[in-house]
Amino acid sequence: MFEAKLANAALLKKIIESIKDLVTDAPFDCSESAMCLQAMDSSHVALVSLKLEVGLFDTYRCDRTINLGMSLANMSKALKCANNDDTCMIKFEEGDSDSITFTFADIKRDKTQDVTVKMMDIDSEHLGIPEQDYAVVCEMPSSEFQKTCKDLSMFSDSLNITATKAGIVFTGKGDTGQSVITYSPSSNADNEDETISLEVTDPVNVNFSIKYMNQFTKATSLSSRVRISLCNDVPIVVEYPLTDDGKSTGQQNGHLRFYLAPKIDDEDNMD
Amino acid sequence: MFEAKLANAALLKKIIESIKDLVTDAPFDCSESAMCLQAMDSSHVALVSLKLEVGLFDTYRCDRTINLGMSLANMSKALKCANNDDTCMIKFEEGDSDSITFTFADIKRDKTQDVTVKMMDIDSEHLGIPEQDYAVVCEMPSSEFQKTCKDLSMFSDSLNITATKAGIVFTGKGDTGQSVITYSPSSNADNEDETISLEVTDPVNVNFSIKYMNQFTKATSLSSRVRISLCNDVPIVVEYPLTDDGKSTGQQNGHLRFYLAPKIDDEDNMD
Amino acid sequence: MFEAKLANAALLKKIIESIKDLVTDAPFDCSESAMCLQAMDSSHVALVSLKLEVGLFDTYRCDRTINLGMSLANMSKALKCANNDDTCMIKFEEGDSDSITFTFADIKRDKTQDVTVKMMDIDSEHLGIPEQDYAVVCEMPSSEFQKTCKDLSMFSDSLNITATKAGIVFTGKGDTGQSVITYSPSSNADNEDETISLEVTDPVNVNFSIKYMNQFTKATSLSSRVRISLCNDVPIVVEYPLTDDGKSTGQQNGHLRFYLAPKIDDEDNMD
Repeated sequence: MFEAKLANAALLKKIIESIKDLVTDAPFDCSESAMCLQAMDSSHVALVSLKLEVGLFDTYRCDRTINLGMSLANMSKALKCANNDDTCMIKFEEGDSDSITFTFADIKRDKTQDVTVKMMDIDSEHLGIPEQDYAVVCEMPSSEFQKTCKDLSMFSDSLNITATKAGIVFTGKGDTGQSVITYSPSSNADNEDETISLEVTDPVNVNFSIKYMNQFTKATSLSSRVRISLCNDVPIVVEYPLTDDGKSTGQQNGHLRFYLAPKIDDEDNMD
Repeated sequence: MFEAKLANAALLKKIIESIKDLVTDAPFDCSESAMCLQAMDSSHVALVSLKLEVGLFDTYRCDRTINLGMSLANMSKALKCANNDDTCMIKFEEGDSDSITFTFADIKRDKTQDVTVKMMDIDSEHLGIPEQDYAVVCEMPSSEFQKTCKDLSMFSDSLNITATKAGIVFTGKGDTGQSVITYSPSSNADNEDETISLEVTDPVNVNFSIKYMNQFTKATSLSSRVRISLCNDVPIVVEYPLTDDGKSTGQQNGHLRFYLAPKIDDEDNMD
Repeated sequence: MFEAKLANAALLKKIIESIKDLVTDAPFDCSESAMCLQAMDSSHVALVSLKLEVGLFDTYRCDRTINLGMSLANMSKALKCANNDDTCMIKFEEGDSDSITFTFADIKRDKTQDVTVKMMDIDSEHLGIPEQDYAVVCEMPSSEFQKTCKDLSMFSDSLNITATKAGIVFTGKGDTGQSVITYSPSSNADNEDETISLEVTDPVNVNFSIKYMNQFTKATSLSSRVRISLCNDVPIVVEYPLTDDGKSTGQQNGHLRFYLAPKIDDEDNMD
């Protein structure tokens, strides 16, 4: 028996919308302490890692470790039925059932909505992600990072990131034009969510496919902040912390992380 | 001579938008007391019945009973030219004319807009709709009914409705998932438009094509309330009352009704 | 060396969006007093004439008359990267450079964005537009003119304009319907931007392709007012004045003008 209740369905809806174009089917690993999901995209270049800790839920009960295989397209259909303010109960009962039931309730109305979605057999290949010390960690407003990736994709398929203590520079170069965006570390005393923080132990110069970055930034609505971790020749980590209120002031109770291997070939072309 | 003036063009615009995908050409039967329209959809499964009573109009003059055949696509084009707050005069003059003129006027500006639309020869086959006592009559917010139909179409082509004194249940079942929405009768003292009322003389269990339901609910913006009348083995009636203000508090002066025959085959598959 | 700075990027962004579907590549003629652009559309029926006077810029430096050939599609890509409130520096340095750099800066953030766009070789054929006295000059709200053109295109490909001292009449006639919009000159003491002014020395009766008119009215967001100049058998001029604030109260520092030759053939068919 697995039963977990979110105070509002919007959180899960946004998560699934963020990742469903990257990953079609995925296993949710449910344990006493968290619901987790780990999956590669279909071309095996990017990795999605989701952790929803018990603290995010209003109620949470997981009798034994269990693996729930889901089509994210069907899960998205189910969650689209929820109003954003509806509570969302996720329920799986062992036995002959091969379905998960999402129950959406609007406390202001005498109405309940049960959406039952068939589960799938999915091999859960839990990929060990090695612990890594990153040379550069940058935190910035997630909407700013989304716009940066979108702007650079105007003229280029590749995103070059260089970072030093002085600042972080995003570059996209193409045949007809190029775009260079430079951020200096800043603090905004009025609004912590607007700050750009940059920790650099070693400078980095790395290239990534901009197409994937634009996919990752679909998660922007999940969190006002994004954390970008970089090291030469190592996958980038783009992390959206999951907090009570979607802001940096909230208590963090999980994360949505995207990993992407650097582009090796293009590196030579950049100067 | 037929001449009728609406205080604002938005009403007629919304009506035509609601039905123009269901019915392409239709005859408007104009008499001393009302403008009426009755037409089957092209596959002869659904029936649209519209009644605009004299009370809805600012001025109304109909010298003799007359039948105005219109292409609803062209009528829609004409009405799209109106601003929602414009007054709308509908005018037909006998003689050699084969057109109807819509005159839109914005009283705040010295501007008049005349849109003239060619009429069509349409056989008016006034279908006698038999009087019927319904086993179940449910009234609910029209937006709620629209969302219910949309949600159920996520996984299913069919909509099953069961109703008892305890409540009304809408079910959509498909191969990959199913959705069940249950309403208990409720009254909302603060806002009458939010109430869900249910009169049940006999329980019903009926199935309909969800595609048509989603067509009908395009009329949602016409009225805050919808009235659903049901009987086993009898067409459902989905009625949007036309009132002065689009709310249940207004004076009713007509209606837009959709009739749809139940799906017989699917009934066996539902339990 | 050419260097000019706009207080906000929105102005240039709106201009390029207005004309980029009409003109694909165009030369910007930069002189001490203004940036100008003149180009025919690809079918050589319409002419675009843009003038950005020094007064529109915060800073402006042009060492010698120069011609900057640009792909408007690429320029549009560059300008889409700007937030509307960003300042926009346009910079071209002679020497081996074949690019223009747009620098967008958000003064509230420690961020700069440089977008560099390759230039093109374009033959600048400065067309002498003869001075012309127009028989009719009409000024109206630009949004009103946009809606008029859109409404008339519902049933017609052609737009007929007749004007006398009594008023100006726009007509679109098609097989299934027709639309006639009549404006009387009006003054709105409360809001000068709403006034319809009409100066008529001789009556006119002219026909134009409505497709081009709908293209021109993409410039609506540039200015609250539009000025239409007409003469029988002479191209219409549709002019959007460029002012500090986009309103008729602002100081005019340039214009975006569209010229379109009348349709001769259709004229016989109109009565």
